[in-house]
Amino acid sequence: MYKKRTDLALEAHEMWKESAEETANLPGVKAEEYEKEGFKVTKIEILDEQGEKELDKPRGKYITIDLGPINSRAADALQKASSVIAQELKALPLELKPDAPVLVAGLGNRNITPDAVGPKAAEYVIATRHLVTQMPNEFKGFRQVCALTPGVLGLTGVETGEIIKGVCEHINPSLVIAIDALASRRLNRLCTTVQISNTGIEPGSGVGNTRFSLTKDSLGVPVVAIGVPTVVDAVTLALDVAETAGVKDLNPDDLLKSTENPIVTPKDIDRHLCDAAKMIGYGIDFALQDNLTVSDIELFLS
Amino acid sequence: MYKKRTDLALEAHEMWKESAEETANLPGVKAEEYEKEGFKVTKIEILDEQGEKELDKPRGKYITIDLGPINSRAADALQKASSVIAQELKALPLELKPDAPVLVAGLGNRNITPDAVGPKAAEYVIATRHLVTQMPNEFKGFRQVCALTPGVLGLTGVETGEIIKGVCEHINPSLVIAIDALASRRLNRLCTTVQISNTGIEPGSGVGNTRFSLTKDSLGVPVVAIGVPTVVDAVTLALDVAETAGVKDLNPDDLLKSTENPIVTPKDIDRHLCDAAKMIGYGIDFALQDNLTVSDIELFLS
Amino acid sequence: MYKKRTDLALEAHEMWKESAEETANLPGVKAEEYEKEGFKVTKIEILDEQGEKELDKPRGKYITIDLGPINSRAADALQKASSVIAQELKALPLELKPDAPVLVAGLGNRNITPDAVGPKAAEYVIATRHLVTQMPNEFKGFRQVCALTPGVLGLTGVETGEIIKGVCEHINPSLVIAIDALASRRLNRLCTTVQISNTGIEPGSGVGNTRFSLTKDSLGVPVVAIGVPTVVDAVTLALDVAETAGVKDLNPDDLLKSTENPIVTPKDIDRHLCDAAKMIGYGIDFALQDNLTVSDIELFLS
Amino acid sequence: MYKKRTDLALEAHEMWKESAEETANLPGVKAEEYEKEGFKVTKIEILDEQGEKELDKPRGKYITIDLGPINSRAADALQKASSVIAQELKALPLELKPDAPVLVAGLGNRNITPDAVGPKAAEYVIATRHLVTQMPNEFKGFRQVCALTPGVLGLTGVETGEIIKGVCEHINPSLVIAIDALASRRLNRLCTTVQISNTGIEPGSGVGNTRFSLTKDSLGVPVVAIGVPTVVDAVTLALDVAETAGVKDLNPDDLLKSTENPIVTPKDIDRHLCDAAKMIGYGIDFALQDNLTVSDIELFLS
Repeated sequence: MYKKRTDLALEAHEMWKESAEETANLPGVKAEEYEKEGFKVTKIEILDEQGEKELDKPRGKYITIDLGPINSRAADALQKASSVIAQELKALPLELKPDAPVLVAGLGNRNITPDAVGPKAAEYVIATRHLVTQMPNEFKGFRQVCALTPGVLGLTGVETGEIIKGVCEHINPSLVIAIDALASRRLNRLCTTVQISNTGIEPGSGVGNTRFSLTKDSLGVPVVAIGVPTVVDAVTLALDVAETAGVKDLNPDDLLKSTENPIVTPKDIDRHLCDAAKMIGYGIDFALQDNLTVSDIELFLS
Repeated sequence: MYKKRTDLALEAHEMWKESAEETANLPGVKAEEYEKEGFKVTKIEILDEQGEKELDKPRGKYITIDLGPINSRAADALQKASSVIAQELKALPLELKPDAPVLVAGLGNRNITPDAVGPKAAEYVIATRHLVTQMPNEFKGFRQVCALTPGVLGLTGVETGEIIKGVCEHINPSLVIAIDALASRRLNRLCTTVQISNTGIEPGSGVGNTRFSLTKDSLGVPVVAIGVPTVVDAVTLALDVAETAGVKDLNPDDLLKSTENPIVTPKDIDRHLCDAAKMIGYGIDFALQDNLTVSDIELFLS
Repeated sequence: MYKKRTDLALEAHEMWKESAEETANLPGVKAEEYEKEGFKVTKIEILDEQGEKELDKPRGKYITIDLGPINSRAADALQKASSVIAQELKALPLELKPDAPVLVAGLGNRNITPDAVGPKAAEYVIATRHLVTQMPNEFKGFRQVCALTPGVLGLTGVETGEIIKGVCEHINPSLVIAIDALASRRLNRLCTTVQISNTGIEPGSGVGNTRFSLTKDSLGVPVVAIGVPTVVDAVTLALDVAETAGVKDLNPDDLLKSTENPIVTPKDIDRHLCDAAKMIGYGIDFALQDNLTVSDIELFLS
Repeated sequence: MYKKRTDLALEAHEMWKESAEETANLPGVKAEEYEKEGFKVTKIEILDEQGEKELDKPRGKYITIDLGPINSRAADALQKASSVIAQELKALPLELKPDAPVLVAGLGNRNITPDAVGPKAAEYVIATRHLVTQMPNEFKGFRQVCALTPGVLGLTGVETGEIIKGVCEHINPSLVIAIDALASRRLNRLCTTVQISNTGIEPGSGVGNTRFSLTKDSLGVPVVAIGVPTVVDAVTLALDVAETAGVKDLNPDDLLKSTENPIVTPKDIDRHLCDAAKMIGYGIDFALQDNLTVSDIELFLS
């Protein structure tokens, strides 16, 4: 049976509630909502096998931040959103070791706009490993960070997982942070939502429908995934539009049969993607380095 | 009442046939289909006021070329498609004067991918006016061509029509060719269709929903419009998916009430847009200059 | 006889002093140096025909701001540099009329990095003419501004001057501000210097060696030129290197005979050019609109 | 003592001849010139320690192809140049094993134009490893190829050598081909010359002045280097201009003392770099796969 496509635990949980037409809690899943600096944060924790099955995601924590307010472009919205991302990353908590680097990987194809959020976000991550090791006095207090954009299988001929694993074996990080573009069930969540999870990345997710896994099991290192929904599939979109309008008797399997179900994205995604990438990059910088300001980051990146 | 959004006369005609559930011909409209070098060409001619009203477009010729086969990327598909575009342009016919230049204008916002087809296509148009006037012997036999990308009102503060008109008054062209991105009712037509018309551009059309008109009336010069559909609105997409699946009782007005009806585009449009832009640019070159080959064009453009 | 190529009045003046081996003042030229917010500003005023002849530039004011300190990337260097540019623009003074728009033109070829500073700077200029005329209440107090990037003759077939003049005739601006890339005699001035002048642009200057003039005479409107040196020619560079080393007996005419004298630019210009473009764009915004902050500008541009 | 900076064995050899003011052959070095499809090819072979010392390069073969004729943009110049690159690669000869992949690495910083030739060339290399392994029947007869762009230390925090080595350990290639931007002693060689060598890459070479080595010793796999000169340093340029003019008594050490000796590049490098990148990418494709045409390559890359 067709299931609306989503990579967001928040939406998987929503859909369970809709299908159950229940207000009851789902056993095996803990859900929580709070506000941080004006942004709505939702935390879904999948606790056991039942929760995994119902939400079709591995157990772990999934934090979703609604960046909606960023669109209002208040003076310090970027700074605030980055700060909330940093706080939620640190609260996971991140499993860091003092002298081991963190490897940040921007996944996706930089030539396809809605798949480019990973590579773009990685551009805003300050790489410090070479500075800390070459000039330890000048960079005392900095954590070692590496930032890679491994490309996609179709263009490189190498699985992203193979590249990350090969590099991990040389630099021995204590943590991998992987940034990727996701699919959502709702157009209005695209580019306005960030999902942070401590589960890594499983095959079949994301815009590029990866076949590899980036997890503690596959890499031997904890993996935090940061994702931004940037696409929705056409059947999911049609159902979303129809349901928002109160039409409930559409059969998704009928819809699916009749179309190739292409993936779509808003026409003006270019702009919003840049904002989201910047917020994620800066958020990672704030989470990994102490006492950094936006000016400091820009100084580094120039 | 909501009408599916389309800038293609072909689709307006299709929709009339569907609504009428008739196979009869629409009075005031002449429709014709033929094949050229493997591409399907449809010619809709709106002849009178009744045709204008039914199809909601000004009277004139609308030629639609289905570039579908280009996706198979046969060795010479680009060359063939450009050649068909050139032939259809010349068959309009183009109203040219021997010593007056032709002004090609690539409309749209180059920073928004699905709106960038005009500026991108203009990059492939060979500007020759300065060459012909400065080196008349070396460029004997070449027609004078200018190629502008005037930008969009939101970024320039000047109506595109004002810029074109201002330039026309200085260079006195015999023809303006305006390239723009369009909206379609069907996802599968995006980037695979080119519409050529001798009616110019009316307010309200295109991806950017222009407020200006580029017509013989407004510019004092005949205007040929070349458009590529690159977007579809969400309600139109939902209806398209539902209808393809045989669901017929959806009320578009219900759908519309419940959503902001954002405009969407396929996720991998970047690539297809480049192909379409190149075909249009080369097609214009072939139509305006005699005995040109693809190699010649590349030599010019480098 | 070969003359070192420069578009900077500051350097023309330097070269006069060197050739004269004098410390005396040049008759017909007034020179002045001062500091503003940590940046060195030099003001050369060419007063009469003798000054014009000696410095090979039309009479008028030439203000040069040394952006050197921006390279240190102090936290607020961008803000400060933009503010100094704005102050010097306003001190020219700008000849503005309350209800007439200002037309900002970013000259040059956006596809050739060192020639792209004009088009890039124009991206940071807030276009307000359509907002002020369409929503006069919401935009009360804003000056009408237009921002164009007319392209280059080789790609458009239309002289930049024809396009600007054509648009001027439609929008009737009280002032044109033209941004262009310049040639310098010294590598270390590239991208670290801004020249503001109230003389407009004469044929033969700039990276693209324009053939048109943009002056009060040609447009009927005062023209302020803002330029950034981004290139140096190879012979000038060789002489500069040799002279800095104390070698004085090189004959430039010998050097010139033996080479095509290509134009060069620093390898990492991409980065510095973006900074310079942003500072100029913001500087124009600050000069033309009251009480604007960097945050406001970013809000507009998004 | 200052030595003119060059990464080309051809120029090191030229400079030895100039300094020796001899026409005699250099012991330990074999030099040969021939023409192939209209392009001049020079082959320098460094045979022993004496040759290594005199030319300051490790022993091995260095083939230089003069792409000058490409600038004339004859119809099939790209095709011919790619074909000559392919022939010279195969004549090295390449040490290939039937079932092991070839790893092509595009070195350099894609954001700095003259350093981007490696990443740009890699875009034209067809990655086939995943196709051959997943669909062995459809891709029978194809060699497995991978194409990576590992980025630069300053942006990633990981040595390029570490990334390549890490990936090699996972994919076990029989050969690594590394593409990089080089420094030349002469402006007129920039972007018009390709050097192919079987020595790999040593620290200190290239535009980015790498600190790593990519050699058979460091990777355990033969390494072929393909380089394009894209920069020249200012002192070398000054000497080149002066010497071309017949001025011989300039002391480079004097020149060097007095300047930071920045690296420069022609102003319009953007365009020429794209040509060079395409020729190299296609040349590698032709060398590694049998019976491929330009159309086939474009079909793959789309």
